Amino acid sequence: MTHHTFDHLLIVGAGLIGSSVARAARSKGAANRITVVDRDPAIIAEASALGFADSVTDDVSTAHDADLIILAVPVGAMADVAKTLAPHLASGAIISDVGSVKAAVRDALTAELPASVHIIPGHPVAGTEQSGPAAGFASLFDGRWCILTPDNTTPDNTTDEIALERLSGFWQMLGSTVEIMTPEHHDLVLAITSHVPHLIAYNIVGTADDMETVTRGEVIKYSAGGFRDFTRIAASDPTMWRDVFLNNKDAVLEMLGRFTEDLTALQRAIRWGDGDALFDLFSRTRDIRRRIIDAGQDEAAADFGRPHGDND
Amino acid sequence: MTHHTFDHLLIVGAGLIGSSVARAARSKGAANRITVVDRDPAIIAEASALGFADSVTDDVSTAHDADLIILAVPVGAMADVAKTLAPHLASGAIISDVGSVKAAVRDALTAELPASVHIIPGHPVAGTEQSGPAAGFASLFDGRWCILTPDNTTPDNTTDEIALERLSGFWQMLGSTVEIMTPEHHDLVLAITSHVPHLIAYNIVGTADDMETVTRGEVIKYSAGGFRDFTRIAASDPTMWRDVFLNNKDAVLEMLGRFTEDLTALQRAIRWGDGDALFDLFSRTRDIRRRIIDAGQDEAAADFGRPHGDND
Repeated sequence: MTHHTFDHLLIVGAGLIGSSVARAARSKGAANRITVVDRDPAIIAEASALGFADSVTDDVSTAHDADLIILAVPVGAMADVAKTLAPHLASGAIISDVGSVKAAVRDALTAELPASVHIIPGHPVAGTEQSGPAAGFASLFDGRWCILTPDNTTPDNTTDEIALERLSGFWQMLGSTVEIMTPEHHDLVLAITSHVPHLIAYNIVGTADDMETVTRGEVIKYSAGGFRDFTRIAASDPTMWRDVFLNNKDAVLEMLGRFTEDLTALQRAIRWGDGDALFDLFSRTRDIRRRIIDAGQDEAAADFGRPHGDND
Repeated sequence: MTHHTFDHLLIVGAGLIGSSVARAARSKGAANRITVVDRDPAIIAEASALGFADSVTDDVSTAHDADLIILAVPVGAMADVAKTLAPHLASGAIISDVGSVKAAVRDALTAELPASVHIIPGHPVAGTEQSGPAAGFASLFDGRWCILTPDNTTPDNTTDEIALERLSGFWQMLGSTVEIMTPEHHDLVLAITSHVPHLIAYNIVGTADDMETVTRGEVIKYSAGGFRDFTRIAASDPTMWRDVFLNNKDAVLEMLGRFTEDLTALQRAIRWGDGDALFDLFSRTRDIRRRIIDAGQDEAAADFGRPHGDND
């Protein structure tokens, strides 16, 4: 048992991320015992059958001896879950989460949880478009970044350094590299790297679905022209993403404003036949793709390595 | 030798698509002899070394005995290429192309080519974000759609049925399913399934690159949150895509107007906290993803089947 290992890991929420944390923690030996709490009987039954935790239950009082609690529920559900857990938490327990928004979660947890626990909001930047207990897998966090947003901004809420080190160690055992930043900066960064991309993907898929001059069948048939790429992230969990936009409103609206401004300039370039403006942008964006591949954040293989035909 | 086989296939342009047509035609035996014409000496040298054609040359007069000529150059270069080829074409030859815009190409070819040849514009809806002779591969068109847009709208330009059947047979040999539609309808369909998706991908990558509050390093590090998906198509060939937008202006502006209108409604829903409007859209878009997968137009595997970690 290293100093990174927790005795009892309790995860609330048995979806894609929660179940992946359980699988990864077990596979890497990051916790001696794993409990998963969910309120949905069907999910509890499914998660129990999958067997990635020592126990799956709807009983929040099982948190009484947990030294690490990770909330893997939609951002909008964090306050309620925290309120339900609060009376059961052991003094000195570390409470973290996996939500895609951090300032709102910090506020919710701080308001609902006792001062005797260590609140360290977190966000593993990893996932797929699939949902539910069966969609998770142990290697989801391998080679990805995990952002922790300890609150050291107020004198009465200074994050305990040992707790922060233990939580960092946990994510490192799961294969991630840990980065520390403020909740507010996290929310800006993710607005442009994740939230606005999801919004415009959802939007183009909706726009395409509403055409009168082009049928839905045609949209599907010719989706390999580019559209299909957007449908992947537009297939992500609706509740999770609704909550992201409701809880990161300011940063999303700011980034969306910039996106729309830039798009309007492109629209004008097309209308007036300004080929140089188009060419300049289209040349500049190639470089970012290369850097993402160099940084190990995407596949170098063409077309995401999708198979092409029977010969591949 | 079946009736689908051409004696001499001449391809103009040795890039991703042109070189893939050559490779596929050879691998499927769709032509007895393959010549690739390019004007760039470096590309000629590279394509010759790759050996996917019987000859690679800058000499357009090699077209004199070609029974199928396929133009695989950017849409904006079609008129010039057609003008150069015109004096060398055999009577009865079939001239087609692979451009992503069809009305403008129909106009360019009709204006430049003699009445003694069969003009049948085409568009294989296939590709990757990579460019150049080395990026091509023989199975690129397997399981994809190829749209042909014969012009039967004017009495003096009625497409020969036998020529259309031979060209359809060619693409079928390469693994594609052929669909016939008017150039104008093609341009509408591709505006929403390909052109606008590319434009917004280029745009979001440009917006992200222009942030002051978020560094480029952060955009790259946290790109797995969704952004990286967009960088793939934003790495596509700048010249090709500039020409697409300049030559399909009306349909792109129409579809872009709808996209922006829908995005503005989403922006308003976020600003006013209308979670139901967000949830409704986010639920509806899942279904289209499933249909695309059912139609064999994308991978069923999560995250495009990207590898996750060392265990996969």
